[in-house]
Amino acid sequence: MTQAPASSPEPTRSHRRKAQTRAALVRAAQSFLAQGQTNTPVLDITQAADVGIGSFYNHFESKDQLFEAAVDHVMDLLGAVLDELTTDVDDPAVAFATSFRLMGRFHRREPQLSKVILHSAFDILGAQTGLAPRVRRDIQAGVESGRFTMTDVDVAVVCAVGAATFLGQLIHAEPDRDDAETTDRAAEALLRMLGVSANEARAICGRPLPELQTAGLRGAVDKATTDGLAAS
Amino acid sequence: MTQAPASSPEPTRSHRRKAQTRAALVRAAQSFLAQGQTNTPVLDITQAADVGIGSFYNHFESKDQLFEAAVDHVMDLLGAVLDELTTDVDDPAVAFATSFRLMGRFHRREPQLSKVILHSAFDILGAQTGLAPRVRRDIQAGVESGRFTMTDVDVAVVCAVGAATFLGQLIHAEPDRDDAETTDRAAEALLRMLGVSANEARAICGRPLPELQTAGLRGAVDKATTDGLAAS
Repeated sequence: MTQAPASSPEPTRSHRRKAQTRAALVRAAQSFLAQGQTNTPVLDITQAADVGIGSFYNHFESKDQLFEAAVDHVMDLLGAVLDELTTDVDDPAVAFATSFRLMGRFHRREPQLSKVILHSAFDILGAQTGLAPRVRRDIQAGVESGRFTMTDVDVAVVCAVGAATFLGQLIHAEPDRDDAETTDRAAEALLRMLGVSANEARAICGRPLPELQTAGLRGAVDKATTDGLAAS
Repeated sequence: MTQAPASSPEPTRSHRRKAQTRAALVRAAQSFLAQGQTNTPVLDITQAADVGIGSFYNHFESKDQLFEAAVDHVMDLLGAVLDELTTDVDDPAVAFATSFRLMGRFHRREPQLSKVILHSAFDILGAQTGLAPRVRRDIQAGVESGRFTMTDVDVAVVCAVGAATFLGQLIHAEPDRDDAETTDRAAEALLRMLGVSANEARAICGRPLPELQTAGLRGAVDKATTDGLAAS
């Protein structure tokens, strides 16, 4: 993913320590978010992160700001991974379906990170970064190329993001459900909604998928925040 | 709506007073829910309802139980209203679209009650009463009659409820947006998803709608809980 530019100064030890503190706070916030505990006092978050309470306010003005950063962080990383996996796909219908199908599988594969996203689901719609703008971009591309006959992009985004979110909820609620099969049927349904024929929608959603590397999404917390601070 | 059966005893004054207390608590809970304030202490709720804190525990074992009753109450009433308005509709595609289109308009018309539903959106999916079972029933009818070609009912319900919920969110977030137009485009998209042709979906979603009487949804709070207690 994004590498620090070659001209960046080597991060100092103090930079690295700051970045580690910030990353620990973000990780702690993500684990509270995953459990829906947004009313946790700041003190509990700093204790979970094993940092002093004073450190908190060196990085964040408020708990809300930390939670926002924690959600943005997961969504940005996931968005970047999905982008990388679909960068060579020319057909917007395939790009849309591939991202949707991978996202569906993500809920079972990374339940904690998935719950961070789902607990902030309603904020996703208006977010300027992360997942919703990518859904919009893919749908817009399909409309512009004539691949999709549904032309109201706002409505298409609402339906697709709503379906994706509730699909995640269903996958969590029913641990025995086949997440891949369920997700592929939903992707197929949304392609029909967008104006792709039933036969073609089925064929697209039966294509092999690229491998979704999720370990990096967790491991990258430290890396991403270190890069972010070193570059600033 | 439901009348108490003729054999029911006349509610006593004590019954009526109890019912009024319960209704006041439900209404107070609904207004906290609409603002997303589920962490409100019980004392604040009883003060808002203008009843003693002791009364609370005569009716509910916990705050969660009250909130659940408050959400169920809105969803059951709305479901009953939608049922009544679509009871003579034979075509499942028209029944589904009519309920969806009325529901979309409900968010702008009754923002407080709409927010009660949206704040508990994820619970809707698994609910045994209220809105989701009605969506499932309508989709199931369409599949069984061959009107809908999408046969995975679980997935169809997830997509439809997800789209309906996020549509409500969009309508609240953008007060200048034409809620009727947006809702009709979403209903049309979902009919295409279910397997109705684009032309027919458009025609169905351009049909005149029955009048949605929402005043009764608020006013019926006292009535419904009085009936409930009198019948028990």
